[in-house]
Amino acid sequence: MAVAEGVDRAFEELRARIAQYWDLAKVQMILFWDQRTMMPPGGAADRAEQLATLARLTHETLVSDETGRLLEEVRPFGESLEYDSDHASLLRWLRREYGKAVRVPVELRAELSRAAAQGLPVWERARRESDFGLFLPVLRHNFELRRQYVACFEPAEEDYDHLLDDFEPGMRTSEVRAIFDRLKEGLQPLLREVLDSEPPDDSFLHGTFPLAAQQELERRVLAGFGFTPESWRIDETVHPFASSAGIADIRLTTHHREHDLHSVFATMHEFGHGLYERQVGPELARTPLARGCSLGVHESQSRMWENLVGRSLPFWRRFYPDLQELFPSFGSVGLDAFYRAINRIRPSLIRIDADEVTYNFHIILRFELEQELLSGALDPADAPEAWDAKMQEYLGIDVPDVADGILQDMHWAGGNVGYFSTYSLGNIVSCQLWERIRADLPGLDDEFERGEFGSLRDWLAKHVHRHGRKYMPTELLERAVGGPIDPEPYLAYLRRKLGSIYGL
Amino acid sequence: MAVAEGVDRAFEELRARIAQYWDLAKVQMILFWDQRTMMPPGGAADRAEQLATLARLTHETLVSDETGRLLEEVRPFGESLEYDSDHASLLRWLRREYGKAVRVPVELRAELSRAAAQGLPVWERARRESDFGLFLPVLRHNFELRRQYVACFEPAEEDYDHLLDDFEPGMRTSEVRAIFDRLKEGLQPLLREVLDSEPPDDSFLHGTFPLAAQQELERRVLAGFGFTPESWRIDETVHPFASSAGIADIRLTTHHREHDLHSVFATMHEFGHGLYERQVGPELARTPLARGCSLGVHESQSRMWENLVGRSLPFWRRFYPDLQELFPSFGSVGLDAFYRAINRIRPSLIRIDADEVTYNFHIILRFELEQELLSGALDPADAPEAWDAKMQEYLGIDVPDVADGILQDMHWAGGNVGYFSTYSLGNIVSCQLWERIRADLPGLDDEFERGEFGSLRDWLAKHVHRHGRKYMPTELLERAVGGPIDPEPYLAYLRRKLGSIYGL
Repeated sequence: MAVAEGVDRAFEELRARIAQYWDLAKVQMILFWDQRTMMPPGGAADRAEQLATLARLTHETLVSDETGRLLEEVRPFGESLEYDSDHASLLRWLRREYGKAVRVPVELRAELSRAAAQGLPVWERARRESDFGLFLPVLRHNFELRRQYVACFEPAEEDYDHLLDDFEPGMRTSEVRAIFDRLKEGLQPLLREVLDSEPPDDSFLHGTFPLAAQQELERRVLAGFGFTPESWRIDETVHPFASSAGIADIRLTTHHREHDLHSVFATMHEFGHGLYERQVGPELARTPLARGCSLGVHESQSRMWENLVGRSLPFWRRFYPDLQELFPSFGSVGLDAFYRAINRIRPSLIRIDADEVTYNFHIILRFELEQELLSGALDPADAPEAWDAKMQEYLGIDVPDVADGILQDMHWAGGNVGYFSTYSLGNIVSCQLWERIRADLPGLDDEFERGEFGSLRDWLAKHVHRHGRKYMPTELLERAVGGPIDPEPYLAYLRRKLGSIYGL
Repeated sequence: MAVAEGVDRAFEELRARIAQYWDLAKVQMILFWDQRTMMPPGGAADRAEQLATLARLTHETLVSDETGRLLEEVRPFGESLEYDSDHASLLRWLRREYGKAVRVPVELRAELSRAAAQGLPVWERARRESDFGLFLPVLRHNFELRRQYVACFEPAEEDYDHLLDDFEPGMRTSEVRAIFDRLKEGLQPLLREVLDSEPPDDSFLHGTFPLAAQQELERRVLAGFGFTPESWRIDETVHPFASSAGIADIRLTTHHREHDLHSVFATMHEFGHGLYERQVGPELARTPLARGCSLGVHESQSRMWENLVGRSLPFWRRFYPDLQELFPSFGSVGLDAFYRAINRIRPSLIRIDADEVTYNFHIILRFELEQELLSGALDPADAPEAWDAKMQEYLGIDVPDVADGILQDMHWAGGNVGYFSTYSLGNIVSCQLWERIRADLPGLDDEFERGEFGSLRDWLAKHVHRHGRKYMPTELLERAVGGPIDPEPYLAYLRRKLGSIYGL
């Protein structure tokens, strides 16, 4: 950000500290990316030390007494600024983060990091050996630490609010509960109807799909979306993610499986995350505002490119001939049959493989269990039983073992409690934005059919991406769609799409 | 390093600071590697800021008042330690580095960095456009800054000693001059004799060599040398280098050219650098001792694997059949003809393409010009003329333009004055070590012919690598070969090898 003449000297000092903070935070992201894509396994021990040192310095830069002093000193300057200005937004962000960070004692913060680092390998082993007993102490300790973390703050409406706030700033548990109750109410009858209907044939989605052909298809799709080697790269990893080393240095990762086309959709998903970071306003560079607004809003972007674009008929009108060329087994499969197959609804054990409807039940289950584990209403030892019961209740599925049940996700091992619900919030927000986008851009289907995605990108840049973290999620949504988070567009979208596919 | 019970508390504190210092230094190396191998071009601006922040924090960690206070406090403890102990060596290193660093004012240090960062793109353009005038202000400024840098220290025997010391600790200009004078005396008549003889045919080294076959040959060679995916990787870049992100995370880079086999030797060269870092004693991890002793000793390792191993007959007895299999055009070329061709001596314009004999004249030329430029005896405006005159004197070559003359190297643009001589010192040291290695390991030729390099690796680990930077270069050499740096083994090696190839 350029600072005008006569600007507050204390603000300049604060800005320099925050620039250093953000440089260090970005460096951690690069090391994290490197660790998961490039690092030889032998580098693990040294890398852990390097990351710990960076994490400590990053945190110290943010919460130092000096930051607190400067924040006080800069108050009159801050109050003289327009709410929407970059400087005012940076100060709002900083006050919020600083205010939260200084409440957590150094020892607790260290223990939170240590428990996460130590918990992940235990979880990996427990999952591999399908042994919940191994994981139980980790789960117990991590929830105990969350209770200590919550106790650092002034009481909120609910304890869980404090955890949620770290991933979805400003969101309250009661709001999410109301949204998820409405989702259940809308999706349960839809799911019953769908499951009572004749499912589309999707046998052709299983087979052998050479990796080079998958990569070529993804290369063409990404090139169409706006991926350029000038500012993007894509690499293989085990658990895919998107990362940004700078506004013009976006790194996607993917994981190919030879027996299905899963990674085509996963790559479009990661592109959505990457594009958000790529289109942040350049004036926000070297500030923590140069990042997506919340996990939920971030997920709205990945879901949009994966589902609203990537599982749509107009998109495949453009790319299905490419897919048929690269995978000759699809020569005898019509576009419509393919479209129905990639949108088939089928309750399953594993969250990350779930379809657009059942995915939300995986999330609701976790959201409910997390609250019970935090309050103590559910003892960690009883969590697998509670998990399995909810899987039966929501999806009618028997869980054969803990590896494909409660041990399937790494989140709780890494201490990320409060994270899951942002996935479903992302689904919901993606459809709220989509409704507005379709109204603003009536020619979108035709553009997709021609392989053009520029006007979608531009709309997202203008209404969402360029603002980075200047606003709270609710403020951003208010600006973009004129209202609060609302599940109705999402429910309407699913009813419409599945109604047509299943002939409901 | 493990610290025994009852060890000095101040030393523990100092060690923690130094561990942080080294973590940050390693992170910079990772970012440097990433920048040159992985980073999309769009990441350049953010990367420059990230590196500048890290450089500042790394430097501040080293030279803080706190480091100085702890160094004083720890003095009695240091004096109680064995000279060879890891702790004593760390304190010696730290005292030396701290003592040098605190003498350089912050502003000068910043200007040295800035001038280097700004000089490199100017050099690139000047070289591309063959326009020395563009580069002249950079050259003038960088030498002026070196004079200011020298003035920060107590006078030494010669001003240039201070520059040399940054790359080859403890080495004096007068020592290098004496060594180089002896090199000239030994090599000039040898070069004349060689050039008067019938040169070996090397026409088959020029042609078209598919990159995939080059990579496969290198893969086989590296696997034989001891490269394992567990701790190593290799990637493409423009100007190859080796880097270490940790003792078990070694990253080589290479640059393939389709019209020659240059990169096979360049890759062996970088392997030598990498192996040094890979075999540093694990007890030195997270200390600045976990690194090669000096640039000269480092270069002795790369030259050893490139030339003493990689241009030897026993090595090619093992690998020539692989080369012939991968490049069928060598089917009609005998091993002996190939061996003679890859060791052909031919004066040429470009240092990095020079053979084992003429390479040293490229270095001597730069060493002599640097001293004249530093003292002011040579005005930078007259440097191209002086360069061309020495090329004629030493190699009998006319320089057609500055791009292939004084502008060929980036070192002066980046402010690395005093660096070049370490390349020839490396050649010399490699042969001193080699003499001792051959005496200790009489079966080496047979092992190479069988593709076994383990006993060479182990010898180097024991006598050189494991010590890292515990000793000064002269101390290390004294331990390894029982004497100071000495050009005679190198001269004898070249006379022997070329005598046989050229029938002198």
